[in-house]
Amino acid sequence: MQDFELDPRLAQDTFPVGRTAGCQLLLMDDSRYPWLILVPEIPGVTELHELDNTTFDQVSLAIKSISRELQAITNACKMNVAALGNQVPMLHVHIVARQQHDAAWPGPIWGHGEAVPYSEPQRQQLMTELAERLLTP
Amino acid sequence: MQDFELDPRLAQDTFPVGRTAGCQLLLMDDSRYPWLILVPEIPGVTELHELDNTTFDQVSLAIKSISRELQAITNACKMNVAALGNQVPMLHVHIVARQQHDAAWPGPIWGHGEAVPYSEPQRQQLMTELAERLLTP
Repeated sequence: MQDFELDPRLAQDTFPVGRTAGCQLLLMDDSRYPWLILVPEIPGVTELHELDNTTFDQVSLAIKSISRELQAITNACKMNVAALGNQVPMLHVHIVARQQHDAAWPGPIWGHGEAVPYSEPQRQQLMTELAERLLTP
Repeated sequence: MQDFELDPRLAQDTFPVGRTAGCQLLLMDDSRYPWLILVPEIPGVTELHELDNTTFDQVSLAIKSISRELQAITNACKMNVAALGNQVPMLHVHIVARQQHDAAWPGPIWGHGEAVPYSEPQRQQLMTELAERLLTP
């Protein structure tokens, strides 16, 4: 099997939270929204529907669980879950906690203004909580 | 069980293709992109992760199958699959066939310019093909 290597554009904009369900879980470095990206570690796949049935089920359940937990952690009024990939084709799923007072509400977050990086302590605290709550052992 | 009634904003912007996997399948009246919306007929649900396991599996498989077939029909270079719902909370999943020459590429389609309605014959032809290819008997 071909080795999986994270797309450098995804790597550049994110911090790794950990691995779960055969995927890398990444935190976007944008403090405007709690914004996670789930990347199945399968080389060459660009569409959710290209996953084989077993992997598709595994990834779908991970999306469900992460979305539920991230909403609980953030008390978000709405979750946004999306596989787009127009700019970075490597299959990746956005799981974003939205608030009615966030920077882009009620519009989509993609392409909206400039990212506001986390401070180091803010990011460390969030990533610890995310790893504890979102990663299945 | 409470009766399901489609949100009037979804009804207003779309045409019904049919029903599949316990969902309504709708075509957005915007000829700039082949844009489907899948709506599980479950009153009061706003998040994918709120679906019970059986329904979640059923809806996920429908998303997979519709995305694959819509890409095959349209020869799209990329599919966009998203559950957002910031403006219309009723759970609905966008399944959109993107092309590198479409109106919003490579940006997201939501909030981009004005919809361009289908002509009647164009819409009839597309809806017939969609119903034949996307609806499981």
